[in-house]
Amino acid sequence: MKILVTSGGTSEKIDRVRSITNHSSGKLGKIITETLLKAGHEVCLITTLQAVKPVSHPNLRIIEIKNTADLLQVMKDKVMDYQVLIHSMAVSDYTPVYMAGFDEIESSQDLTEFLDKKNQETKISSKEDVQVLFLKKNPKIISLVKEWNPNIHLIGFKLLVDVSQEHLIQIARESLEKNQADLIVANDLTQISSEQHKAYLVEKNSFQTAMSKHEIADLLLEKIKSYD
Amino acid sequence: MKILVTSGGTSEKIDRVRSITNHSSGKLGKIITETLLKAGHEVCLITTLQAVKPVSHPNLRIIEIKNTADLLQVMKDKVMDYQVLIHSMAVSDYTPVYMAGFDEIESSQDLTEFLDKKNQETKISSKEDVQVLFLKKNPKIISLVKEWNPNIHLIGFKLLVDVSQEHLIQIARESLEKNQADLIVANDLTQISSEQHKAYLVEKNSFQTAMSKHEIADLLLEKIKSYD
Repeated sequence: MKILVTSGGTSEKIDRVRSITNHSSGKLGKIITETLLKAGHEVCLITTLQAVKPVSHPNLRIIEIKNTADLLQVMKDKVMDYQVLIHSMAVSDYTPVYMAGFDEIESSQDLTEFLDKKNQETKISSKEDVQVLFLKKNPKIISLVKEWNPNIHLIGFKLLVDVSQEHLIQIARESLEKNQADLIVANDLTQISSEQHKAYLVEKNSFQTAMSKHEIADLLLEKIKSYD
Repeated sequence: MKILVTSGGTSEKIDRVRSITNHSSGKLGKIITETLLKAGHEVCLITTLQAVKPVSHPNLRIIEIKNTADLLQVMKDKVMDYQVLIHSMAVSDYTPVYMAGFDEIESSQDLTEFLDKKNQETKISSKEDVQVLFLKKNPKIISLVKEWNPNIHLIGFKLLVDVSQEHLIQIARESLEKNQADLIVANDLTQISSEQHKAYLVEKNSFQTAMSKHEIADLLLEKIKSYD
């Protein structure tokens, strides 16, 4: 099958020298990609500069992107041509809009004025003791996937931090429904280390538990076979 | 001589999954370190996870740090034991203090209240359309170096974006004086690429021009010989 995988984490520029980055090593996306390739699938991996990459393979194409706007563009182009999307990339929820010193913000009568402003400087001055950064929400790309290709099998990811298993699975089920996904891989940062990677592969009426990145990849491979 | 080099860029956490990062590949710090080692100097390199590292060498010790607080601690410990500091790391000027939805900020009578707040969540919710991040200024570590070791030879760096040569050199001279530095390497992001790296090595009454990372390293090596 033709499978689109995303991995790594996006970065959103504050100015030419600073960014807000979502952490993601890309290790899981690499293992998933390599597992799919070994099973004979064709993979296009959308990833970021800092993420670790799979070893090259005749059935692998890699596209590097930086930020959410790039990702939206590439996904919109590609989603139509693939049968499965495994969307493991950590995507920035917000993009910096405007940064200013505290005094400028405090003396404003109407804070909404800053939402339409843009910094003119290429490197924002660092003279102020306190700075205030306004950020606006990015489009939720996962929610657009089924509009672009209603037939694609959509596998999403949900990362929370230090929550109960029940809560994690509930949030995954909400994402499943909202994004019309086939499956959500739900994981908790406190249960991810170099030795383990606990995750729940959550479907509408059931879930499976994986204890490592390789187990996640193997379970996803099984699942994808059933989509064929 | 015993030389302390810093390279890479620091990251300041917003929450467990997001950080503000200062971009720096670490390439210049790597070349400077390798040049110094080849000339027989002993180097301790303070750098960051993402930065490229020099090849290992019996006279090289590498210390990895993440954020400005780490850097402050390590520098305070180490500066005393070295004769020269080459401080090429891109250090975050600000650290996130508190992030909140726009409504919470807008309805406040006194914005200073947010400067003492801390986010309780481990992953800040992404429901709001606009978020506002308050950041406070970090201590300027370069300005503390001579307090910790009045005898150290201090070589600082100044990176600006798209300014005139005159302005760049003027800003470098201000930094020279303010931080009691021996030399400031002043460079402009628009003149740095994989092919070139233009920089001015600015001293009180003169400056030298380098056109590549290797030229910067060679000129610094010459300069350090004169300190001995």
